[in-house]
Amino acid sequence: MRIVVALGGNALLKRGEPMTADVQRANVKVAAQALAPVAEKHQLVLSHGNGPQVGLLALQAAAYKDVEAYPLDVLGAQTEGMIGYMIEQELGNLLPFEVPFATLLTMVEVNPNDPAFQNPTKFVGPVYEKDEADKLAADKGWAFKPDGNKWRRVVPSPLPKRIFEIRPIKWLLEHHTVVICGGGGGIPTMYLPDETRTLVGVEAVIDKDLVSELLARELNADLFVMATDVDGVYLDWGQPTQRKLEQVTAVELKAQNFAAGSMGPKVSAAIQFVENTGKRAAIGALQDIEQIVEGTAGTNIIK
Amino acid sequence: MRIVVALGGNALLKRGEPMTADVQRANVKVAAQALAPVAEKHQLVLSHGNGPQVGLLALQAAAYKDVEAYPLDVLGAQTEGMIGYMIEQELGNLLPFEVPFATLLTMVEVNPNDPAFQNPTKFVGPVYEKDEADKLAADKGWAFKPDGNKWRRVVPSPLPKRIFEIRPIKWLLEHHTVVICGGGGGIPTMYLPDETRTLVGVEAVIDKDLVSELLARELNADLFVMATDVDGVYLDWGQPTQRKLEQVTAVELKAQNFAAGSMGPKVSAAIQFVENTGKRAAIGALQDIEQIVEGTAGTNIIK
Repeated sequence: MRIVVALGGNALLKRGEPMTADVQRANVKVAAQALAPVAEKHQLVLSHGNGPQVGLLALQAAAYKDVEAYPLDVLGAQTEGMIGYMIEQELGNLLPFEVPFATLLTMVEVNPNDPAFQNPTKFVGPVYEKDEADKLAADKGWAFKPDGNKWRRVVPSPLPKRIFEIRPIKWLLEHHTVVICGGGGGIPTMYLPDETRTLVGVEAVIDKDLVSELLARELNADLFVMATDVDGVYLDWGQPTQRKLEQVTAVELKAQNFAAGSMGPKVSAAIQFVENTGKRAAIGALQDIEQIVEGTAGTNIIK
Repeated sequence: MRIVVALGGNALLKRGEPMTADVQRANVKVAAQALAPVAEKHQLVLSHGNGPQVGLLALQAAAYKDVEAYPLDVLGAQTEGMIGYMIEQELGNLLPFEVPFATLLTMVEVNPNDPAFQNPTKFVGPVYEKDEADKLAADKGWAFKPDGNKWRRVVPSPLPKRIFEIRPIKWLLEHHTVVICGGGGGIPTMYLPDETRTLVGVEAVIDKDLVSELLARELNADLFVMATDVDGVYLDWGQPTQRKLEQVTAVELKAQNFAAGSMGPKVSAAIQFVENTGKRAAIGALQDIEQIVEGTAGTNIIK
């Protein structure tokens, strides 16, 4: 099978963990152990989150005053290199030398008229006091929203329209390369709305699960898995009636409501994939990935 | 023709320029304008330096005290993403939409017994006062050498033995993809000298021109170009008898002496390529790249 696996941010760096290189590498090692048997048996495409990593780069850049911090698209490109490197190296260590690997920088087109640009919602970087936030808003044109009793930068989260490197990814899969791409939801880019048709970076964050869904669809993947730190999608989460969905149709799942901050985006991405392709999507725990691929773990969403 | 072009660090960030994202992007735009006609006519592989960029990331990481700075291999991976992104985007803006692009993370194997590990020579990161340098040497095991009247970290520069992603690069070239890879000389890695055969990152810097030569050789390139900010190799540089070499055989060039800090490494890489392949190598100015490819500019080194 051809499988796209989206690794949740928590798979690489858990909330509250120190953001050191050692901690990240240890987590990537654990992820690689779960993924190795899948990579041996199937064509595998891996995407991954980058929230904590971009946050760290933003903090480091803000701490060094001599050079202005680089924009978010460039920081995103940096994290694609950093995280892709760790995954490629650690997963490579668990597979036969003959298995080819490629980590591809991935640019994703967004629409300049996407309504998300009118309502930035994604937190990025450090928290600030009100007066610092006001100054940065004036200096750099950044938008801020309250985060607890501090203020934090917010950027838009527009929909992904096109993955520019989709053809190279396809060609590499035809050679059974393990491809790592779409990191952090891809680097958001847009064509300037003038006659030059110049592609430029955008200070935004594209939802990783939606980009992975687009990737899976464009690659004609047989299966699209979102691997996270819970073992599936639950109804009545946290209530006495809580129960896990083992298998559910896209139509049944659409009738349910999930919070935007929890399973909402994953459920939407899964429904979108299943409705567009008729193929299976799955949501579950990374450590169960082998069983998820076999259809015996996680929540399976079918036509 | 299949052509490997190594972009010198100066092509992307000139000495003394501020290291801002805008300055880098402006330089990449100029480089892209020179490279676009070559990319339209030939199979093109681009490698590039990363010295100033790694330096900036090291400074930023050192300025942020809450998380220990990431090791040099991880910083190198970050710069491959950052610089590759800018090149891919700017060159892509000058070529027809149909031309496929791929920026590949590149890991390069070095030999743990390389004598370079006994004698670190490559400066990286910020300069320190003696007492700070001593403390870092004790804490982190870093090596330091004097740089002017300050101290600066030095790392080994071992020889490149193998480019792990060489097969994906070949497959992409077969589809006429413009491939950006080997950035900063590639990420130095080595197999632990025990029975686990674990590949790990190494705190070192591999010479970009030597990696590009290995790349050109392994890809059976017809031409290997080192693009820099001077228009060729000069004999008696800075003396009244100074003259540019237009065309020279590898044997003739070997008989000359060039300083290690100037043309030395480029000349060695050119000789190595020509002697191993019988094909042409060239050294010259990036703005002359179209003529260099045609054999009418730069210094051409032939069998």
